[in-house]
Formats: sequence, C-alpha cells, structure tokens
Amino acid sequence: MPNERSYEASLRRSEEIEADLAVHPRRYTMLTGDRPTGRLHLGHYLGSLKLRVELQDMGVRTSVLIADYQVITDRDTTEHIQDNVRNMVIDYLACGIDPAKTMIYTHSAVPAANQLILPFLSLVSEAELLRNPTVKAEMAASGHELTGLLLTYPVHQSCDILFCKGNIVPVGRDQLPHIELTRSIARRFNKRYRKIFPEVDALLSSVPVLPGLDGRKMSKSYGNAIALSMDADETARAIRRATTDSEREITFDPERRPGVSALLTTAAAVTGRDECDIAAEIGRAGSGALKALTTEAVNSYLAPIRERRHSIEGDLGYIRDVIAEGNRRANVIAQDTLEEVRDAMGMLY
Amino acid sequence: MPNERSYEASLRRSEEIEADLAVHPRRYTMLTGDRPTGRLHLGHYLGSLKLRVELQDMGVRTSVLIADYQVITDRDTTEHIQDNVRNMVIDYLACGIDPAKTMIYTHSAVPAANQLILPFLSLVSEAELLRNPTVKAEMAASGHELTGLLLTYPVHQSCDILFCKGNIVPVGRDQLPHIELTRSIARRFNKRYRKIFPEVDALLSSVPVLPGLDGRKMSKSYGNAIALSMDADETARAIRRATTDSEREITFDPERRPGVSALLTTAAAVTGRDECDIAAEIGRAGSGALKALTTEAVNSYLAPIRERRHSIEGDLGYIRDVIAEGNRRANVIAQDTLEEVRDAMGMLY
Repeated sequence: MPNERSYEASLRRSEEIEADLAVHPRRYTMLTGDRPTGRLHLGHYLGSLKLRVELQDMGVRTSVLIADYQVITDRDTTEHIQDNVRNMVIDYLACGIDPAKTMIYTHSAVPAANQLILPFLSLVSEAELLRNPTVKAEMAASGHELTGLLLTYPVHQSCDILFCKGNIVPVGRDQLPHIELTRSIARRFNKRYRKIFPEVDALLSSVPVLPGLDGRKMSKSYGNAIALSMDADETARAIRRATTDSEREITFDPERRPGVSALLTTAAAVTGRDECDIAAEIGRAGSGALKALTTEAVNSYLAPIRERRHSIEGDLGYIRDVIAEGNRRANVIAQDTLEEVRDAMGMLY
Repeated sequence: MPNERSYEASLRRSEEIEADLAVHPRRYTMLTGDRPTGRLHLGHYLGSLKLRVELQDMGVRTSVLIADYQVITDRDTTEHIQDNVRNMVIDYLACGIDPAKTMIYTHSAVPAANQLILPFLSLVSEAELLRNPTVKAEMAASGHELTGLLLTYPVHQSCDILFCKGNIVPVGRDQLPHIELTRSIARRFNKRYRKIFPEVDALLSSVPVLPGLDGRKMSKSYGNAIALSMDADETARAIRRATTDSEREITFDPERRPGVSALLTTAAAVTGRDECDIAAEIGRAGSGALKALTTEAVNSYLAPIRERRHSIEGDLGYIRDVIAEGNRRANVIAQDTLEEVRDAMGMLY
C-alpha cells in the first residue's frame, strides 16, 4: 500500500480528472483490462465495466485488454483460456462496450507492445521489482512460487499502459504501486532518450466493492458470485443457496450478519437504494422475502445485459471478428510506438 | 560455474556434436551473437567469428544476433549504437559471414521473438533468476546496479536460441548456466503445453582465449585490442605501444613476462606456430624484433579480412540491406514459432 500522503495526492488528482473528463474527454486515453480466468460477474460490472462504458460514451479513447499472459503469472496451465476469452468478449459487448469505439485486444497478439518490456526492464532495478507490495500480496494469495513473470508483470503492465499512451487507468488503491512504477518508467525513458510517453494517473474508484453472496470477496472460486452469463433461474438458485440466518427481522449489520447484509448490499447496488431502507421494508418477513426481493432486483437489473448477451453468444464469427479487429488496431498503435522507441534509442540501422 | 561433473558431461556432448557436424550439418541450427558496444577485434575473430564461418560453410543453419537490447542491461545509454551495429555487420561480412547463408539480425527488430520472454518467464522462478552465477558476475563487473533486464536476460537469451529452434550454441564454460536454463525452459514448455522446442547443447570452444597486448583480457576499454577495423599502420602503432620489458632474451613466460608472452601468443595464434618456437627464433634480438615479427604476422593474417572490409565499408546501402533482409527472415521464423506457441498454449481466439 502506498503511504497515506501519496494516496491522498492520487485521490485529489483522480478527482480533478473526474471533473475534467466530461469537459475534455478527448484529452484522455484509458486502458484497463481483465485476466481471463473465469466469467465476469455482477461485481465486475458495477465496479469496473459500467465505468468503462460511461467513459467510452463520453468520448474518452478507451482500450480494454484481455490479459491472457497474466493467467500464467501464478498458474501452470492455460486450460479453458479460449473459452474464457471469447466469453469475456461476449460479456463486454453485452455490457455495452462498443468495439467501434473501444479497442478490445489480447496480450498475446500484440508483439510490438510486448517487446517494450525489454527497454522498460532496463529502467527498473531488481530491488524495485522485489519490493512491489502488490506482487508480494498476489504471490501469497496464489500459493504458487514467485515466477519470473509475476515478478516482472508490473513492468509488463507498464507496456500495456504506455504502448497506447494511456494517461488514465481506473484502479483500486492496492494497484497504486503499479501506476507509480509506470510513471517512473515513463519519466526515466523520457529523460534518458526522448519524451515519448505521458505520465499516467490513477482514476480511483468511488464505487464500494460488491461483496459475494456470503459476505466474502466476490469470486468465482468461492461460488458466491452472480456471473453475467447466468440466466434468471440460475441467479435465483444462487441467491436461494446463499447462507443467511434464522432471525426473522432483517437488519443491515455486515459484521454480525454477513449473509443477510451481502444480500442487502446487492439489492441496494442494483436498485440505487439504501441497505437500511430495504431492510426496513422487509422488516420481519425474513430471509426468504429478502432473497425474493434481491433475486427480482438483480434479474431486472441484468435483464438488458443478458438479452444482448443472448443475442450474440451464438455468433462465434462475430466474436472472432471483434477480437481480430481489436488486435489489428492494437498492432498498428504498438508498431508506431515501438518505432518511436527504436528511433529515440537510436536503434535504427 | 557449473560443477565439474556437469561440465564434463557438457564437454563430452560437445565433442560428440563436433564429430557429427561435418557428417550431418543439416541437423544443426546454430545461434550466436555479440553485444554491439564497440568494434570486433582479433580475439573475437579467433575465438568465435572463425568458427561461425566454418559452421556456415559446412552447411549448418547459422544465425548471428546483434544483441542491441543487451547493451542496456548494465548501462544507461545507447550512444553510438547505430555506428556500432553497422560496423559489426561490416566486420561480419569482412570475416566471411555470408548473408545469403547466415541470418544476421538485431534483437530490437524482431518483436515476435522478444514476446517469447513472457511465456518463458512464467516457466522460471525468481529464485532461479537470482542464483544465476553469470548474472551476478556480470553485474559485479559492470559496477551498475542490477537492472530488471540484466536479471532476466538469460531468459531473453533463451528466446534468441529457441525462436529459431537453435540446437547448438558456441559458448565458453562461464556461459553454461545460460544453456542449462534454456534447456530447462524448453523442457518445461514442451511438458506443460506441447513439444515445440529442441534441447540445445553447448559447443564448447577448444580455442584458448587470446590475451590483450598487455596480457590482460583483450578489451576495447583496456586499449589492448587489435580491432579488425584497424589498418596495418594502426596495428603497428598499437603493437609498438605494447608494454614489454628490458630483457634481451625473449622467452614465453606468461606469469613473469605478461607483455612479451602476450605478443608471442598473438604471433603464434595467427601463424599456427608454437610460442616457444617463435621465442627461440627471436632469441636475444629483444622486444623490438618480437614486435616487428608480431606486427608482420598479424597484418598478413588480417590482410584479406581488411581488404574485404575496405571494399564494403563505404557502401551503407548494402549494409542496411543486409540488416533489413536478416531482420525480415528472422521475423518470418519468429512469427511461425510464436504462432506454434500460441497454438500450443490455446491462445487462439
């Protein structure tokens, strides 16, 4: 975690940018992405996808990266990756990401962007790599030994951001060290060779993180997530299975009643209401009523997304075209940037 | 340094390959290269370039890499890199490397080969990177802090070897850990995904290393090297400046008489004679006679190389074409290999 002071500075900067976005959207290039390790869920939508669509529709240049090489930072297999990537694109489109406006591409298909990791690694010391707190936390969470790819992935992330000259990246506080590293790499490159790269800023999320149905972090591996690809019945079943408690009176108390409170937060998030209001409305009708209300709220909220999802999910040709076109655009940008980098470094023979 | 046992095993394997090369040259793909930090010298020619030409003319598939990204593993500038690269190509051609047979290319121009560092880094642990003895030695020698690029360059070297499916690499004993790492990466990739890569072997040099004119390691930075790009007069001056001693009687005694002995070794290397025979021939004629003999021997030996050098060095268009064509060929091979890698990893969408 960055210290309080640098966090406060990042937050202020983020607020300034947020205020400026609607006024000068074309000044901004946003890069964000996802690791294709499973299906996107309601938490992803509320916490990230929704904002991407808003920025896209505002006129910000938006790029969404499917970080397929990041799958192997801490696992020994790429099983199901094709299926995960294609479903991720289906989810993006269903949520309103428009491939005519937003560039959707995969890591593994853009060699000229990946090549930037070599000059960038020369600008970073071993000590800096080793002290990255997010890398340490991710390694601990994975239970996997620290691979060379996990150790260097913050530098790879800098390639993602800088190849398209991204200047805003929506992140949570825990990702600020990566943004700081990208700023350092850009600054050092510009100073050592020639000014090519912008200094990126974090767009710090003001949206609270949606908990899973059991009150823990929402995650596919915990089985507590409402995937965007579920249908209304699957959603109803998942909510029905959620562990609540036997108190009739519904109250919002995340500490003592994680299950009940997670349902209240979910219902609140998709209706724009307050958790306590919903709890008061249900009163002594119990968990069954809370689950019915939450199911209804979530299904209504996701209905248009699911309808779009349904209309495209069978059209593999279209999905492949979207990926191919995004990769093509990313390659054009990456080759231009790499050419500038080669020129700045004198590597033209 | 690898332990004695694994060194002995590598040596035996190298000798087997050496015996087989003339019989089955087409079974072998050789990759070697140079860091373009200065001019190639007589030590490079005798220790490496000569063998490359022999392998090329035998019919081995040969590739020579100009490792321009390796320049910045331990320095903060790419000053003179364009000039160094072009002169390196001129030296190659002058020495007999034939661009119609040998692929000459630069790191920075082959993105699909560089991209392999990402999957390969996932196959290597941080601990393996940190315990590489050659990396430690090179860091200590450079006096520069350990950059991310130096830390990971053995993995980048694996990309160089494996993108073109190299199965022999001429190296000295100190480079064996890199070869071992490349073998591990190939083995792990093949096991985890699908067999794509060969296991490379070291071709251990039997040529003793030529000392500099002062008996130390031959190096441009010590001013003790005879560059291939020097003319006969510059060579004579460099040898005249070499520090010898005032004993009239010339004897071969590297410990006690490093300067005299280095001249004897140089003269011996380019004439195929024995140091002691040359010393006996000069007898009590002193250092002046030794220097005259060495100058004459080196200049005769290098005359055809310099003549070829002279005939091409003014033709920048040709040099640029050679580099462009080598890079083009390397890109075709790299894209094919990357496609296989993507396919094996399921990263085709």
